[in-house]
Formats: sequence, C-alpha cells, structure tokens
Amino acid sequence: MLQEIIKKLSLKNEAKIILIVIDGLGGIPNAEGKTELETAWTPNLDQLAQKSICGLTYPLSMGITPGSGPAHLALFGYNPFKYEIGRGILEALGTDFPLESNDLAARGNFATINQEGIIVDRRAGRISTEINLEVCKLLQGITIKGVKVFVTAVKEHRFLVVFRGDNLMEKVSESDPQKTGLSALEVRPLDSTAKYTAEVINEFVKIAKERLRDSYPANMVLLRGFANNIKLPSLQEVYKLNPAAIAIYHMYKGLARLVGMKILDSGETLEDQIKTLEKNLAIYDFFYFHFKKTDSFGEDGNFSQKVTMIEKIDSLLPKILNLNPEVLVITGDHSTPAILSGHSWHSVPILIHSKTTRRDGVDKFSESSCIFGGLGKFEAINVMPLALAHALKLSKFGA
Amino acid sequence: MLQEIIKKLSLKNEAKIILIVIDGLGGIPNAEGKTELETAWTPNLDQLAQKSICGLTYPLSMGITPGSGPAHLALFGYNPFKYEIGRGILEALGTDFPLESNDLAARGNFATINQEGIIVDRRAGRISTEINLEVCKLLQGITIKGVKVFVTAVKEHRFLVVFRGDNLMEKVSESDPQKTGLSALEVRPLDSTAKYTAEVINEFVKIAKERLRDSYPANMVLLRGFANNIKLPSLQEVYKLNPAAIAIYHMYKGLARLVGMKILDSGETLEDQIKTLEKNLAIYDFFYFHFKKTDSFGEDGNFSQKVTMIEKIDSLLPKILNLNPEVLVITGDHSTPAILSGHSWHSVPILIHSKTTRRDGVDKFSESSCIFGGLGKFEAINVMPLALAHALKLSKFGA
Repeated sequence: MLQEIIKKLSLKNEAKIILIVIDGLGGIPNAEGKTELETAWTPNLDQLAQKSICGLTYPLSMGITPGSGPAHLALFGYNPFKYEIGRGILEALGTDFPLESNDLAARGNFATINQEGIIVDRRAGRISTEINLEVCKLLQGITIKGVKVFVTAVKEHRFLVVFRGDNLMEKVSESDPQKTGLSALEVRPLDSTAKYTAEVINEFVKIAKERLRDSYPANMVLLRGFANNIKLPSLQEVYKLNPAAIAIYHMYKGLARLVGMKILDSGETLEDQIKTLEKNLAIYDFFYFHFKKTDSFGEDGNFSQKVTMIEKIDSLLPKILNLNPEVLVITGDHSTPAILSGHSWHSVPILIHSKTTRRDGVDKFSESSCIFGGLGKFEAINVMPLALAHALKLSKFGA
Repeated sequence: MLQEIIKKLSLKNEAKIILIVIDGLGGIPNAEGKTELETAWTPNLDQLAQKSICGLTYPLSMGITPGSGPAHLALFGYNPFKYEIGRGILEALGTDFPLESNDLAARGNFATINQEGIIVDRRAGRISTEINLEVCKLLQGITIKGVKVFVTAVKEHRFLVVFRGDNLMEKVSESDPQKTGLSALEVRPLDSTAKYTAEVINEFVKIAKERLRDSYPANMVLLRGFANNIKLPSLQEVYKLNPAAIAIYHMYKGLARLVGMKILDSGETLEDQIKTLEKNLAIYDFFYFHFKKTDSFGEDGNFSQKVTMIEKIDSLLPKILNLNPEVLVITGDHSTPAILSGHSWHSVPILIHSKTTRRDGVDKFSESSCIFGGLGKFEAINVMPLALAHALKLSKFGA
C-alpha cells in the first residue's frame, strides 16, 4: 500500500543515496550498562550524528525479531508480512545460485540410512564440505518429466536443490521426518495444485537414493523448506532508481538481486567494499552497502569483537563521507545483542545525513542517544521513503 | 493481522510475565501543574523506572477515549476495532453472569407505565437494589420457543437479561424509547436474520409486563444494547500462555474470562491480591493483575484519593518485585484524570522491567518523565508482543 503510493510519487534525478546497513547493529547493555555501540569509540559516527537527524527503527513491528530476509525487505521498503521469502529460496540466495522466476527450491541434508532404509543419522556424520561437493557431483544432470534438477553443495551435510520447470508448487510436505529410526517420508501435495510437484520430487528422491547407494555415510537425501521463488517489484520499477549492492556475503547479494539491484564485485574486506563504492559512484544512484561482521560476532556472543567491528566501520567512515552523497543513511537491519547471541526485537539506531534534514540534539550515535532523535521511533519500512524524500526523489502527493 | 503473526511466533517457556494494570492511571495536571501520578510519593515506582524501559501508550489510537472493554482488549493484544464487545455483553461481564457462547444479552431498566401503557418514569423511581432483587424474582423461569431467559438484578433499576438459544441475533432495535410520554417500542429486526429474535424478545416483554402488573413502580421493562456473546481466540491459543487473572471487580474478571484466563479468587483488597499472586506464581506463567480504585476515584473527580491509591500501590510494589518475574509490566488501561471525572484519550505511562530491556534516562514513573522513555509513544496493542519478546516467548520471523 505504502509502496504503491511511493511508486506513483517517485521520480528520477541525479542525487545519490548510500544506505549503509551495519548488520545486527543494535545491542543491549552489558554489566557496565553499555551496548556494543555505546562501548565502541566512534568519533566519526558521533560527529556525523551531530550533523544528521537520528532515531530508532523497529525492523518489522514492536516485539518481533526478524530474520535477515524480512529485515532487509522492510529496509528496502517492502512490506515484510506481505512478501515472505521461503526457506528454500533463502538457502538459494545464500549459495548465490542463479534463481529463475519459476524455480522451486528446497533445503537438503545428506543422511545415512541402513539396509532397511531406516535413517540412522540425519546429517550423514556431518560430512565435510569437500566430501559434500563430491557427493553432489553424483546428483548432477537429473531431469524428471522435463523438470531440471540442480543440486548444489552448501556446507557440511547441507545442500540446495532447485527444481526448474512449469507448474511447480511449494505446497508440498517435507521428506525429512526430523528424527532417526524412521524412513524418509513420501512427499505429499498439501493442496490439489501440487500433485504433480510431489510426483516430481518423489521421483528425484528415488533417483538420488539409487545414485547414492555406494556413497555411505551420505547415502540418502532429506528435503524440507520447499519454496517457490518470490516475485518482487524491482527498485527500478518502484523508485526509478538505478541501484547497486556492495555486499560480500551471498545471502545479502541474493536479497539485493531479488529487488533488482546490480551486484557489484565487492572483494573480501570492508576496504575493498569502499573501493568498489568509490569506483562505481558515478554509475549508480542508489547503493546498498552491507557490513556483516557486527552481526556475526553478535551471534557468537562476542561483545568485544562486535565493538571492534563497529570501530572499524567508524574508522573508514571519512572515506565514505568524502564521496558527498546527497543522502547517507546509516542503520542496521536489526539488533543482534551479543548478550543474547542472536537477532532480537530491539529497535535499531538510524541516522540520515543530507542537506535537507533538520537537526536534533543527538550528539552520539548510540541506542540511548537516538531515543531523543528527531525521527523518533518508527518502523523500518519508512526508511526508503525518507531517503528518497531527502534526495528530492519524491513528488508531492495530491495538489 | 499482528495477532496472527504473533500466534505463529509464540512459544512456551518457563518465564513469568506479570502485567499490572492500574486502572485509569494517567491524569492531567491540576492547578499546581502536576498529575495524580506526579503528585503521589512513589519511591518504589521511581526506582523501578530507573532500572526499566519506559514510554507512553495510546490505549486505542491518538485522541480516542476507550471504554474499559476495548482498552483491556488492546492491552491483551486484541485489535479493539475488530473485536467489539456489545453493551449487553459488557453488562453481563459486570454481573459475573456465566455467559455461554450462543447467548444474546441486553441491558434492562425497570420502568413505570400508567394504565394506558405510557411510560411515566424510565427508571421506576430508581428503586433500591433490594427491591430490584425482589422484582427480578418475578421474571425467573421464562422460556419462549425453547429460548431460556435469565433476568439478573444489577443496581437500582437496572438489570441484565440473557436469552439462551440457537439463532439469536443482535441486529434488533431497542424497546427503550429513551423518553417518557411514549409506549415501549416494539423490537424490530434490523436485518432479515433477526426476525425470530425480535419475536422472542417481544414475547418476553409481553410476559414480563403481565408478571409485573402489580409491582408498581417497577411495572414494565425497557431493553437496549442487545449483543451476541463475542468469541475471542484465547491467550492459550494465541500466545501459548497459561494465564490467570487477579482482579476484584466483576467486569475485569469477565474480560479476563473472555480471553481464556483462569480467574483466581483474589479477596477484597490489594493485599489479598498480592497474596493470591504469591500463592499462584508457580502455577501460571502470565498474570493480569488489576487495581481498580485509581479509576474509581478519578471518575469521582477525587484527585487526592486517586493520589492516595497510587501511593498504596507503590507501597506494596516491593512484595511484587520480590517475586522476581522475568517480565514485569506496569501500566494503565487508559487515563482517568480526576479533573475530567472520566476516562480520557491521554497516553498512559508504561514501564517494562526485565533482564533484556535497554535502559533510558527516565528516573521517575510519571507522565512527563515517560515522554523521554526508550519505548517512545506507541499503541497499547503492542504491549503483549513486547512483554512476550522480553520473556523470550517469541521466535524469529523469517530466516
């Protein structure tokens, strides 16, 4: 609804928007009463906050902890409750598999079965990724009733399977019984449109089982999280942007590709990412710049390393400021407090820097300072409209 | 919508949530510029606020003054605009009548009619409750076309009538003409499904009139506020909670029963209520703890007694803190400023205390301090998601 209005109002101009997403940025206080961001020495972020307007975002809605998929969709201005990204598709995004619009994807495990076909290990002894790659070779080139099947190794015992063909439907049951001592389950259609899909998948499982007969312990496949590829209106369509993504991790590149961004070759380090930004500044008008490691260390419960990562971003911020984008937004997709070792529902600091922002009294970029920010507390789905507005890329609604 | 999402995310764990509702908590300033809460000496609440995250809730929506029904529904996480509790049902809740799912309830007045059947007093001279109880005895045991009719005295000239049977519909007109000098109105169906219901009600009025012939001044009944019982998903269903209510007044017990709470025997005083909480802490994981008297004195325009009631809650707060619930929420269902002698639309202070909250700089639990709270200003329907999140009872949305 909001996005449809924005689509009518959006217009093209030369202004540049840089959206820096510091993954899992928000935290909760440690024993000293400070979050990771409050503990970090961030002179550049703080100075920028003083010249910007600040606030706190709720990624989806108060109290709700988002996964990376919905958190990013909201940041990009998509209703995360309307557009759900299924598990299989997220796995595909994470492997950088080139999805096509009709694809049906699922998560797979290699498992071990005994001679009676009973599952004795759902993870095939957690085989190494190297062995996984070898086993996946046995499952190449399978076509069933015209449906092409692509099997791609992920990590340890996990793989991705993509079915490419017409009329494939995600409404099917899983083959993974989620425990040992049982046979793999027949995949069943969950509604009448998915009968054909279930047949294709069961045939694939049968062929896979035959081909894996001699590859103990990885002698069976278990499938779950079937999901059709999601169709999203692109950032070009909705915002009339020419957008690019500067991300290192596959999943974030995948999410960016889903909304039509050009994926730039961004190297392996934050320094590489900044060089990529410098090099491409003239070419695109919107940059999604993703920094992952704050989230990774948050997930690991590593408070001090998350602090260090925030300080790293801070130290390189002047290079980004030198590029003088018309609008610079710095925020996170969600909070990942090290104390919780995981994503959380807490609000996320945000600053918007542009010639057209007002000022507030915020003198530090932190959770507790941003309480007093001029933007207040708001849902992240409003970030894109705000960014576009400050870039003067939205026309007036009504006369 | 929000509640359906929360339902998918909710999970069971051992954490305890206590929701203390100080009825009508919020106020507006008196001549000295202070609200009731700001006037009260509340060292315990203030100290707790310093260790909690604070904010202000809008019970339903900015500017809207709620009744007790919708205000509580919102606090319990139900969309108060979707689920409307009709007047008759609210009356039934207030009398502690054991409603069943198909019941149709209405408010009744005993009235006085003259020999021509013209209403000369809509309130039968405001008969005493004792006389009301006697008159109600005359109306017991009526059954019309298989529909059982229950008449229960309320207060003075007011009574509750409940029709129990199949296919009873609330879409009927009222019999009370709302002024004297007229006859009681025939009840008319307001849509085609309510024809049978109107017949049953008119037959009841006819029988009641006959039975009351000799009980002047209460010789007629006037009915209004017809309402079918409302069906709400329970807190067990939606949140996977095992919830209990500690309330003294019927209406609040009734509201709690509507959402599936176990109603605990809570005595007559705040001290009794706290003993009930202590005794039952191990058994339930969610407690709705309702304190009425702040609202009652607010409604009476009694500023100083409302202040005293707030101080009373404050003095007993340490007993509740001793129970160490994982999440303690203290708020009101709405504001009842003594200066307005009634409910109002003003926002309501809230604090959430838990190990997983951030801190803000709020050092006093008051309307003016909570302006600067870390939760900001938000609609009360978000209180339950927040409480559940802090109790780690909500899983992640999406991956």
